[in-house]
Amino acid sequence: MTKFNNASSRIAIGIEYEGTHFKGFQKQKKPNQTIQGKLEKALSKIADEKINTICSGRTDTGVHAYSQVIHFDTSKTRELEAWIKGGNSFLPKDIRILWAKEVDKEFHARFSAHSRTYRYLLRISKLPSALWDERSLWISEDLDINAIRRSSKLLIGEHDFSSFRSSACQSKTPFRNVKSIVIKKNKELVSIEITANAFLQNMVRIIVGTFLLVGKKEIFHSDIKAILEGKNRNLAGKTASPSGLYFVGPSYKKKFMIPDISNTLT
Amino acid sequence: MTKFNNASSRIAIGIEYEGTHFKGFQKQKKPNQTIQGKLEKALSKIADEKINTICSGRTDTGVHAYSQVIHFDTSKTRELEAWIKGGNSFLPKDIRILWAKEVDKEFHARFSAHSRTYRYLLRISKLPSALWDERSLWISEDLDINAIRRSSKLLIGEHDFSSFRSSACQSKTPFRNVKSIVIKKNKELVSIEITANAFLQNMVRIIVGTFLLVGKKEIFHSDIKAILEGKNRNLAGKTASPSGLYFVGPSYKKKFMIPDISNTLT
Repeated sequence: MTKFNNASSRIAIGIEYEGTHFKGFQKQKKPNQTIQGKLEKALSKIADEKINTICSGRTDTGVHAYSQVIHFDTSKTRELEAWIKGGNSFLPKDIRILWAKEVDKEFHARFSAHSRTYRYLLRISKLPSALWDERSLWISEDLDINAIRRSSKLLIGEHDFSSFRSSACQSKTPFRNVKSIVIKKNKELVSIEITANAFLQNMVRIIVGTFLLVGKKEIFHSDIKAILEGKNRNLAGKTASPSGLYFVGPSYKKKFMIPDISNTLT
Repeated sequence: MTKFNNASSRIAIGIEYEGTHFKGFQKQKKPNQTIQGKLEKALSKIADEKINTICSGRTDTGVHAYSQVIHFDTSKTRELEAWIKGGNSFLPKDIRILWAKEVDKEFHARFSAHSRTYRYLLRISKLPSALWDERSLWISEDLDINAIRRSSKLLIGEHDFSSFRSSACQSKTPFRNVKSIVIKKNKELVSIEITANAFLQNMVRIIVGTFLLVGKKEIFHSDIKAILEGKNRNLAGKTASPSGLYFVGPSYKKKFMIPDISNTLT
């Protein structure tokens, strides 16, 4: 791979963000309110040229990320540390670049990802919390976690997830392959971690909104089957609030040697 | 205990807060920048009279609390739910009232507490974190946790903690009784939980600042002994930043039946 200034190189970076104060990842009319807008502005300063970024998966308003992976092309040569430390010096504290590496042009943050993982953090407690409520979804009544765990198994595998997609979703196919759903409880916190090849718009939030109905015994195991087979958004639960949703990150083929931080998470 | 409007009753409440945006607990010239100022304003609205509060332990600028306990006297009769839900409706989201109960006049949030517990959360990672840095103290190099654990045992018991108090500390005696120091590591997070009868000003932060020197092998076990015996603030480490410090809460005699939330913490 050339390092000359007149050739372009492709850089991949990993970023973590606290989504509370942003209107999601994707750049919009007011780019300063989005993570992509803030990030491209910072990277463009380091590169001293306009940087356009591509992410592994867009996140909604208020959604956090442990490890969003992004790539961009640049004609400039910079030390990797300059992208990381220089980039962070131009970013607000709620967006942090974690790593940077030069990658082959074959690598594409979105198209090379063979799976993505999201984590939903629920906090079950009679009263709201000052320390947790922007980082978790507050549930004021007890949930039957084992019932949710049983129902979650019905969603594993390749299915038509029409019942679990936003009416605004523009994906050509409603089929997605859910690889795993892992549910853990630690005192008042419950995490629901879902891995799929990719997700439809609002799919994680609608799945969790539906799991909440199961947990509250408003619907049952057999209903989940009927909702999935009905292929109708109106059958499933409400879209859960984004405050408890974290994009854990994408997975790539080993040959790309993209850092995987998921096993370092607490 | 009388419930008539012309008699006063004593109410205890537990509050949780995210200290990042406040200049500490204690009311100052600008009460709106303090937790006590915000709290008294909210409670006074519920009571429709001026409420003055007393807390179990003041916290510094930026310090968080899982369970600060407060008492106040009021001539008004209110349902306990009115103090909790009404109070929360007048408070910012980073301060939450968790419980309220009527207590005997013998109970005093500060003087009845026989011990207090603080937790310091360190995050050991090469780079800063968007999700953790206002809730933990970021340490960019590896720490020898076992060395810290060994040194911590030297502080257990009643000692003159002059080396571990702020020069501004106004306590009449430098003696405090440290009952336990529990250090746990979970991936990149390290928690140091210290329980004592009471703490001198900045005592937890100076102890942790000194532990960091032990963890980085800049000082050793025997130095901790010398620092303690030297009774001189200049011998100990720097006062650690408040961003990782949480007041877990006070403990009271069982007869007061004050809720203890410490065992629900993750």
